[in-house]
Amino acid sequence: MLIVMQSQASEDKIQKVIDFIKQRGFDAHISRGEDHTVIGCVGRKIIDKRDIELLDGVKEVIRITSPYKLVSRVFKPDDTIIEVNGVKFGGTHIGMIAGPCSVETYEQMDVTAEKLYKSGVRILRGGAFKPRTSPYAFQGLGEEGLKILRKVADKYNMAFTSEVMEVNQIPMFLKYVDILQVGARNMQNFNLLKSLGEVRKPIMLKRGLSATIEEWLMSAEYIMSGGNREVILCERGIRTFENMTRNTLDISAIPVVQKISHLPVIVDPSHATGLRDKVAPMSKAAVAAGADGLVIEVHNNPECALCDGAQSLYPEEFAELFKDLKALAAVVKKTF
Amino acid sequence: MLIVMQSQASEDKIQKVIDFIKQRGFDAHISRGEDHTVIGCVGRKIIDKRDIELLDGVKEVIRITSPYKLVSRVFKPDDTIIEVNGVKFGGTHIGMIAGPCSVETYEQMDVTAEKLYKSGVRILRGGAFKPRTSPYAFQGLGEEGLKILRKVADKYNMAFTSEVMEVNQIPMFLKYVDILQVGARNMQNFNLLKSLGEVRKPIMLKRGLSATIEEWLMSAEYIMSGGNREVILCERGIRTFENMTRNTLDISAIPVVQKISHLPVIVDPSHATGLRDKVAPMSKAAVAAGADGLVIEVHNNPECALCDGAQSLYPEEFAELFKDLKALAAVVKKTF
Amino acid sequence: MLIVMQSQASEDKIQKVIDFIKQRGFDAHISRGEDHTVIGCVGRKIIDKRDIELLDGVKEVIRITSPYKLVSRVFKPDDTIIEVNGVKFGGTHIGMIAGPCSVETYEQMDVTAEKLYKSGVRILRGGAFKPRTSPYAFQGLGEEGLKILRKVADKYNMAFTSEVMEVNQIPMFLKYVDILQVGARNMQNFNLLKSLGEVRKPIMLKRGLSATIEEWLMSAEYIMSGGNREVILCERGIRTFENMTRNTLDISAIPVVQKISHLPVIVDPSHATGLRDKVAPMSKAAVAAGADGLVIEVHNNPECALCDGAQSLYPEEFAELFKDLKALAAVVKKTF
Amino acid sequence: MLIVMQSQASEDKIQKVIDFIKQRGFDAHISRGEDHTVIGCVGRKIIDKRDIELLDGVKEVIRITSPYKLVSRVFKPDDTIIEVNGVKFGGTHIGMIAGPCSVETYEQMDVTAEKLYKSGVRILRGGAFKPRTSPYAFQGLGEEGLKILRKVADKYNMAFTSEVMEVNQIPMFLKYVDILQVGARNMQNFNLLKSLGEVRKPIMLKRGLSATIEEWLMSAEYIMSGGNREVILCERGIRTFENMTRNTLDISAIPVVQKISHLPVIVDPSHATGLRDKVAPMSKAAVAAGADGLVIEVHNNPECALCDGAQSLYPEEFAELFKDLKALAAVVKKTF
Repeated sequence: MLIVMQSQASEDKIQKVIDFIKQRGFDAHISRGEDHTVIGCVGRKIIDKRDIELLDGVKEVIRITSPYKLVSRVFKPDDTIIEVNGVKFGGTHIGMIAGPCSVETYEQMDVTAEKLYKSGVRILRGGAFKPRTSPYAFQGLGEEGLKILRKVADKYNMAFTSEVMEVNQIPMFLKYVDILQVGARNMQNFNLLKSLGEVRKPIMLKRGLSATIEEWLMSAEYIMSGGNREVILCERGIRTFENMTRNTLDISAIPVVQKISHLPVIVDPSHATGLRDKVAPMSKAAVAAGADGLVIEVHNNPECALCDGAQSLYPEEFAELFKDLKALAAVVKKTF
Repeated sequence: MLIVMQSQASEDKIQKVIDFIKQRGFDAHISRGEDHTVIGCVGRKIIDKRDIELLDGVKEVIRITSPYKLVSRVFKPDDTIIEVNGVKFGGTHIGMIAGPCSVETYEQMDVTAEKLYKSGVRILRGGAFKPRTSPYAFQGLGEEGLKILRKVADKYNMAFTSEVMEVNQIPMFLKYVDILQVGARNMQNFNLLKSLGEVRKPIMLKRGLSATIEEWLMSAEYIMSGGNREVILCERGIRTFENMTRNTLDISAIPVVQKISHLPVIVDPSHATGLRDKVAPMSKAAVAAGADGLVIEVHNNPECALCDGAQSLYPEEFAELFKDLKALAAVVKKTF
Repeated sequence: MLIVMQSQASEDKIQKVIDFIKQRGFDAHISRGEDHTVIGCVGRKIIDKRDIELLDGVKEVIRITSPYKLVSRVFKPDDTIIEVNGVKFGGTHIGMIAGPCSVETYEQMDVTAEKLYKSGVRILRGGAFKPRTSPYAFQGLGEEGLKILRKVADKYNMAFTSEVMEVNQIPMFLKYVDILQVGARNMQNFNLLKSLGEVRKPIMLKRGLSATIEEWLMSAEYIMSGGNREVILCERGIRTFENMTRNTLDISAIPVVQKISHLPVIVDPSHATGLRDKVAPMSKAAVAAGADGLVIEVHNNPECALCDGAQSLYPEEFAELFKDLKALAAVVKKTF
Repeated sequence: MLIVMQSQASEDKIQKVIDFIKQRGFDAHISRGEDHTVIGCVGRKIIDKRDIELLDGVKEVIRITSPYKLVSRVFKPDDTIIEVNGVKFGGTHIGMIAGPCSVETYEQMDVTAEKLYKSGVRILRGGAFKPRTSPYAFQGLGEEGLKILRKVADKYNMAFTSEVMEVNQIPMFLKYVDILQVGARNMQNFNLLKSLGEVRKPIMLKRGLSATIEEWLMSAEYIMSGGNREVILCERGIRTFENMTRNTLDISAIPVVQKISHLPVIVDPSHATGLRDKVAPMSKAAVAAGADGLVIEVHNNPECALCDGAQSLYPEEFAELFKDLKALAAVVKKTF
């Protein structure tokens, strides 16, 4: 930590700051500039920088060690590659996940899965427990949904992912799912993250609507610090003032995260934009920018979907898009 | 719901939209303007407006019924007044809650509570389970913290509030606390909200960092729809581009919420600004704008606080502030 | 305009609203739903919708006609293609503009232009008048810079664009430049926009840092309403809470604008991200998403650039990137 | 400037950074911590910190000197008090400015001014040149408006302020107005700011919709660096994701600015909220938080206002509010 003193700070004030940090177990390195004296605060203890900022004569306190450890490239320089059912996320590999927003019936999942399988998809998605803004909206089929997903996935030799909403649900999810998804609204549900650290299946961690990249990585740190090293980060749009799209898909988060962290980062263009005709361009943008995977909503009959049909692709649209994405991947030297 | 057709929409397209909504159980009222035909979609069913927006010839679909019912002034025109330990929130009453960020020891709480009691405070606050961005930071004393809070509160005939983070913790909280607090990061933890709907103690619901006022009210609706009518809304700052304060306290949310809803809305200036010297001006601003209460962090020894000492007031500062706040309250015709 | 009355609005209040709008020259169409009476307000006059919202019994007023006319696809369904020096923007054409942030010397521009020309660039960029946040920072060479740009451009048969900051400067700019650029901070400098409406050269209109897409299109409307039909829209990042990149490049603005408007929309990845190593992935994302052009900062010697060297590509990096972009363009069926 | 090296940075890389900054005229102070070597970069030259950030082995570069000089309390510790027509802004003084959004007719201004005068107002406001998002909206009366304002102000011994939109208009404004207002959209119109630095009348500088406090102060620095020391800062709401109010009034900007700068900071609650019934609570909040003044829109007949009638108070409402504000001011030890 670096403590920048005000330009007119007296020797007395400087000494008091030094005493303060020494009492708390830190060493002090003093460096005098033309305008400002800077005190390097060296040590392994944890201290709230604002506590120092409130001392007399202090202009600013600057943290210089990153708050994340296990998620960082400093800790692990090579890309983490996560493999599920033969599909790889990370490095030069782009993984594809597709399926409807919600599981509605066995027939719906069966028809959709068959078509997706033929397009080359090997990991399904589908919500069984749905976080809905309104208590009066469809809340999902619950465990019955997970059973349907498992049955259909097995029929086509596919894996699947579904969103877990609560610590209590984890044992049930472990019976069925291949990847546990943490939704945007639960990105800072720290109890859930801690419990998922003890799981030994991959976690797909969605970025919160207003989460900074640093906070998102800290949430991954929670999971990793529990011992689970398989975290897939998923960008799904952030909240901004613009309201022509549901959220603003932060495509630049892809290269930013890839520089700081070794974890794979994938993109959900369906929830980010909320509109079917924006899914294809944003999927292409994600792949061109170097994304390690995509999660795309596809429904066999979007007009009748119980949830988010408006942002779901028709299976035929998806098949067409998947071809284009493979061609784009080749240009950026990656493969699905 | 109103469906606005594009200006050049053909009769055929208009008819298809009418058929679409009739099949889903709605009635259609057609109104032809100079530029646009508007179809009123009348009925009690739920439909995702984007499903209609994707039909050919549709320009825009506008929802006209409010999504909230029980929280709304249409449902209950009079102010809800919530009383805890003789302290009232709502109507012309302003309730005060004060205490440290975290419970650290019995002595700390005892000293702080005694001083606050003498200032006139009758409801304490204190965190026992702490949601922290980093897995390596102090996470609170847990149940031991709740026991300390209860013991100290009883000693001074005070009530107290503390944050509950998970469904599992609710039975434990009910043994000790008087008001259950839902933190900003859990504002859309829908499972938690549903469970709190079954509780018969007041809930203090903090606004999420990037929650719209509508989403915040919908979260209160979750609690109320479970049967719990005592919800205190708490504004605590929203995330914006400005970073000179930790968050931007949205003071205008006070009159906005009070117009739409009958529920009391209080303000937490400590977390919003993150800095001690901003707490007094923002507390005053909140009262002047008509807030129904305040939650203020006070610590007997902020320099040694384990958490958020930088935003905690000294007990003497608080006592001074409380006097000013009472004088301001009189001007806006309210009383503590 | 649609006026939605409150659910309990009396007949008397409804009548008063009808009288109010009729007095202002509008017709009223009444439609009664289960919950709400809706009054269609039909006519060509302009009225501030908030004036009606303040009337007794009114719940909400909804504008249904778009505020823009000339920029809209309703007015002109076909893509506007703007051609400068053989380079086309719009339709299936992607135009490339490249060059340094600021013109510094004749030699710098000459070396840079030669290398860019060899890469296939035909339009240069370069700032002569620089809008700088600090009054103490380098403000550009002024008219001298424009002369250098013209001389160098002529030497290589290239065109160029440069930013105009003020109405007074327009005649001077017309002597030298091929495309006049309006910077993000001037997007709502309405006097400047009006004056540029009278110009008969293309205008590149950058999106303001916090401008909604609607406001951006309205600024284009200002220029077009003056008679200038050649407006190139340029997305360059919006201000959000995320600060790991200078701004958040809103890639989804590309398909959103292309649906509403016939004007070409290009992307400036250099200013959006502010960092050299993010320029390539974001350029690729823009092309994959369907952008009609790019403006990329390239400097022959970025370490010595007087301005924004940190976000400028080396000429060799740019040449490499341009090749990749052409390959990506082919996949999305467009050409440079 | 402090240069933080990566934890694994080699001696060779550290030396290259030192050479780099020495070549550019800086001194280097090296300080070695447990994890990071920090290089203090000392000197008076200007350098873009990103240029250093791109060097091998550099983790982060931190600027420690403030970018503003003349606006800072370091430069001038005492509050600047600006007096216009006997009304003071700054220190313990709160100045009041009131009037309609736009000047429409002599009669309108005369009636409004008379009523405001009786309430105790001594400075009028009124727009003659209006920045409007749409080219088709009412653009103001122009110079005729300024003449009306002058005539009416003189009749009642009042001063007035009006918005100047362009460098060209300054000489005309100097003939009529007492305070020149710079609108939010022009906060970074640097040519305008520079020209206003040469003026010897007070400038009211509105904060841009998405301007950080630092950028706002830098714009004031532009004016002051030209020699004009009378700048009144005006907070008028920032753009956030919340859309129940037009903008989010950033009340916390008041104490934040007052700590950093000696300039007075006033508040415009009318434009911030956009709704009449929110003007009173937000005006009160501003005064309670310590604002040095207010600008409030008042119209003798808001229903017929050509612009922003919806946010204008009736003269009687204003008179009532002004009384309450004076009572609140007394509590925070300030006076109107």
